[in-house]
Amino acid sequence: MNLKELRIGFVGVGRMGANMARRLKDCGYQVAVVQDVASDLAKSLADELGCEAVGGPAEVTAKADLILTVVTDDEAMRDVFSSDGLLKDAEGRIFLNCATVSPSVHEEVAAACASARAKALEACMASSITQAREGTLYLMIGGEKAVFDQVEPLLKDLSSSLRYVGVAGEAAKVKALVNMVMNINTAGLAEGLGLGAALGLDLEMLKEVFSQTGANSRVLETDGNDMIIRDHDCYFSAAHAAKDSGIANALANEAGVPVPLSVSTEAQYRKLIELGRGGLDKSAVAELTFPGRSED
Amino acid sequence: MNLKELRIGFVGVGRMGANMARRLKDCGYQVAVVQDVASDLAKSLADELGCEAVGGPAEVTAKADLILTVVTDDEAMRDVFSSDGLLKDAEGRIFLNCATVSPSVHEEVAAACASARAKALEACMASSITQAREGTLYLMIGGEKAVFDQVEPLLKDLSSSLRYVGVAGEAAKVKALVNMVMNINTAGLAEGLGLGAALGLDLEMLKEVFSQTGANSRVLETDGNDMIIRDHDCYFSAAHAAKDSGIANALANEAGVPVPLSVSTEAQYRKLIELGRGGLDKSAVAELTFPGRSED
Repeated sequence: MNLKELRIGFVGVGRMGANMARRLKDCGYQVAVVQDVASDLAKSLADELGCEAVGGPAEVTAKADLILTVVTDDEAMRDVFSSDGLLKDAEGRIFLNCATVSPSVHEEVAAACASARAKALEACMASSITQAREGTLYLMIGGEKAVFDQVEPLLKDLSSSLRYVGVAGEAAKVKALVNMVMNINTAGLAEGLGLGAALGLDLEMLKEVFSQTGANSRVLETDGNDMIIRDHDCYFSAAHAAKDSGIANALANEAGVPVPLSVSTEAQYRKLIELGRGGLDKSAVAELTFPGRSED
Repeated sequence: MNLKELRIGFVGVGRMGANMARRLKDCGYQVAVVQDVASDLAKSLADELGCEAVGGPAEVTAKADLILTVVTDDEAMRDVFSSDGLLKDAEGRIFLNCATVSPSVHEEVAAACASARAKALEACMASSITQAREGTLYLMIGGEKAVFDQVEPLLKDLSSSLRYVGVAGEAAKVKALVNMVMNINTAGLAEGLGLGAALGLDLEMLKEVFSQTGANSRVLETDGNDMIIRDHDCYFSAAHAAKDSGIANALANEAGVPVPLSVSTEAQYRKLIELGRGGLDKSAVAELTFPGRSED
């Protein structure tokens, strides 16, 4: 199968999906059709890429062979994979599901696709917008190994690190844990820097000391400065952080594992949503811990 | 002042203090006298170093010019710095206080030393036993700059990174924040790995994925494997972690900064102490989150 002869479709063309579509087009794939509940997003991307924007998921299935879905959450996944949506006349289609959703939803979708004689892989992304555009995503794949082998060249064009994790749901579990720990470290860093600010410490000095000690972390590098200067332009939204920590916490609840820090982290991100700040970057959790900010 | 002509004393010769004494001896300093509430520790170290072990802090002041204190907590600091302890006939003595204690206790001690015509610096260590032995500590100094300048060569012999932070209490604040964030990241990592174990994931794979994504942290490097293989030989005890998070949480409480993750972290470490596991390494927080372990 020459993947570059396939018609590629996208369902969900927000920041991540749109940049993955651009990347595939750059690599010579035939991006044929795009769709989004925000129809203006789909229209604008279709204009840019010279492809078609359609009104609903069923039309994407009708007009594409390989379909990437990059939707918001569990509910959106179930919506697009309805029998009159992506699964309508879906025989032979391959779906690559890139959203961070509950592992059980990936399992449901994989089963529903099998019933519709279609194939599904979960392609969980542990990276952000820039990496989507440049084809340097960190991708973890769950589903049938044979399907993975079939689409591996395309996945490689999207990623700098590609890892087949296991059957349906497995990659989503790993992804949920990555974001769970990342979110804990982010909310914890916001507490450290926020308290440092309240104590009148030099935050540049504090950040540098953190970086050289046991307090160091990837999120210190990516979010530390943003927390200090209040630059919360969105790469990974607070609302997504709340959702992802929520997925992990539901898994923990089912498994009977106590995760008090992750529960506190989800509560912090939910609080940001309640304050109307769910659209800010995850670094905005510092708005809850720096003195004076939460009253702004 | 030639520091190598001074008589050096140590109060508190546990894992850290003993190794700092060994290091100073190796560097040619005159380690003259050591003391510990555990008198056998002091005796054994004195035999090893060919110096004197004495029964109480006042005798250390009587027999040394420059005294390093490496005690357990706020209460121990106040005990050793009593008027019939280290402060008895202390005129002209220089105290280097290396324990992680509350910033306000460093301020109290600095004031009491000034009244006794002695000098005090806080020398907060963000490293562990190996670094103490090898003279590669990460040291943050608080107190009078002139005193710092006086003892800088000795501090350099103990450290690979030396930083003068500010007046009394300032270095202790930075140190409290370092350990606060480190402990949060540790307890959070234990939740991620513990839930991964409960979900039946390959933990080596999970740890590697963490290391390449937003979940990466210094404690993943230092404690991740120990959590998986249950190697909790003590470098930095769970009891110390509880104490240090408690110092940060008290500061946050005074400052009115909400720190829910740090509060959850302290609670986890206190739970380990309640379970009789406070003497294990901080990595033992994973004993609370891996399936089946807490019943052992």
